[in-house]
Amino acid sequence: MSTLKRLAISVGDLNGVGFEILLKAHETIKHLCQPLYCINYTMAHQAARLLHTQCPNDFSMVKVGGEFVIEAGKVSAKSGRYSYDSFKMAMELAKSKAVDGIVTLPIHKEAWKRAGIDYVGHTDALRDFFDSNAIMMLGCEKLYVALYTEHIPLRDVASHITFEGISDFLLRLYATTQEERIAVLGLNPHAGDHGVLGDEERIIEAAIAHVNTTLGKTIFFGAIVPDIAFTPRFRAHTRMMVAMYHDQGLAPLKALYFDEGINVSLGLPIIRTSVDHGTAFDIAYCNKASTVSYSNAVKAALHF
Amino acid sequence: MSTLKRLAISVGDLNGVGFEILLKAHETIKHLCQPLYCINYTMAHQAARLLHTQCPNDFSMVKVGGEFVIEAGKVSAKSGRYSYDSFKMAMELAKSKAVDGIVTLPIHKEAWKRAGIDYVGHTDALRDFFDSNAIMMLGCEKLYVALYTEHIPLRDVASHITFEGISDFLLRLYATTQEERIAVLGLNPHAGDHGVLGDEERIIEAAIAHVNTTLGKTIFFGAIVPDIAFTPRFRAHTRMMVAMYHDQGLAPLKALYFDEGINVSLGLPIIRTSVDHGTAFDIAYCNKASTVSYSNAVKAALHF
Repeated sequence: MSTLKRLAISVGDLNGVGFEILLKAHETIKHLCQPLYCINYTMAHQAARLLHTQCPNDFSMVKVGGEFVIEAGKVSAKSGRYSYDSFKMAMELAKSKAVDGIVTLPIHKEAWKRAGIDYVGHTDALRDFFDSNAIMMLGCEKLYVALYTEHIPLRDVASHITFEGISDFLLRLYATTQEERIAVLGLNPHAGDHGVLGDEERIIEAAIAHVNTTLGKTIFFGAIVPDIAFTPRFRAHTRMMVAMYHDQGLAPLKALYFDEGINVSLGLPIIRTSVDHGTAFDIAYCNKASTVSYSNAVKAALHF
Repeated sequence: MSTLKRLAISVGDLNGVGFEILLKAHETIKHLCQPLYCINYTMAHQAARLLHTQCPNDFSMVKVGGEFVIEAGKVSAKSGRYSYDSFKMAMELAKSKAVDGIVTLPIHKEAWKRAGIDYVGHTDALRDFFDSNAIMMLGCEKLYVALYTEHIPLRDVASHITFEGISDFLLRLYATTQEERIAVLGLNPHAGDHGVLGDEERIIEAAIAHVNTTLGKTIFFGAIVPDIAFTPRFRAHTRMMVAMYHDQGLAPLKALYFDEGINVSLGLPIIRTSVDHGTAFDIAYCNKASTVSYSNAVKAALHF
């Protein structure tokens, strides 16, 4: 009997590259974990046929209903609905402890909208389903960046910088990662340059001090000058960072590690990781998709 | 008689790494341009002695008064004053057309403050001296990023996004660079995601359309999703970008090209370039400083 952890894999939008990726990676992945693919036999074989191959014998599936005709590269309500149902199955398996974690392939937001699904993406669906305030973290083994604020307009970011908000975020991040050294970025150019270019850094620094005191050890440090944080010298001794807003963290991260990046949802009752790319409709079923991000997502689901 | 262009070189804070860099690079630089160093004989020889070397015979200097004792790594009013006077001399040489451009070595902002100099840095001194609204651009041959807003708090950035402001900026940028393809970044995550995450992209896109129409050709394109703009695939066909704010441009840029980066001031009557690093007081007079950024700054001063 295998002692490998069990991971539910949601297949993402079947009109995109997700199925090709998980099928190509299966031979490698199965030695790391027991993958349980959330797709039914009919859809899996239809997708495999489009890739001129077939599903291997040890390709364990859990049935997700709702057959439809796959159309490579097409945004469709049916495909959106199926990708949501696959994901929902993965969440249910995790909730019932039938699996140890979830890895998700990319969905298409517009397809979800057309299918009448109210969530913008995986993360808010997870928050709702598990009634938990998940932390969104992106990156790879070399560098992870956790986002303090995520999908909000830039003009609203500064007003979210509060002592309570940041303290709570840092405590949750430490509780879930147990990382011993985490850099926290400032908000303003030059981290405010002693208040000349903004003063939110005082709030950030007060929260860092408070959290370190609470934990009884120095885990967090900052506020780091944002445009220094990603330079080679700084990265050399930093494996995890907290960014104050979406592009502060993700623009440098994707500049450095685009193809290897993954997305982790922390602070939920279960671990969930995801590839950090989209459905890539333009190369769907062309046997061109890279499995690097997916393999890293599986490894991270086993690590965190 | 040499046909090489003449560049005035301001020596920066003599308690820092500037003089070491220009002395080490002189042999190479002199084949590209006629450097005119803004420093007097006494100070140059004092600095050279500290580096256990001497100034070469073809080391052309223009006298800047105000002798003081160099103290490696020390923030001092005297050194701050001298670095300003050296820079002022370079600006005057440029104004009188005695040189074709200026290259500046790093000054120390705190030292300027102690010397009672009102400017925060080179750029605002240049704006004042030439009474021109200089554009600040950073980068290297592979990628230049021009900053639409610079040293302002993040909370103030969104209110600077105006049709007139961006149109004017783009027109000036094209006039001075003649670059034929320039990407313009959005302001919000996912460039607003069709207005869901902020709507300043409509203003940016209207300004781009207006400027392209005015120019009679498609120079500018965007608004580009900020965390996609610096990925390898996007960079492969983009040599120049406009960032809406300081860290949006500089965090990814410095993540990618930290040691090669330079700073260019565009839109002044003369070209001015600068290294994109600081005084590095910790390694002053240790013969450890890299000349890469300085060499690139000289080359860029000859290019733009």
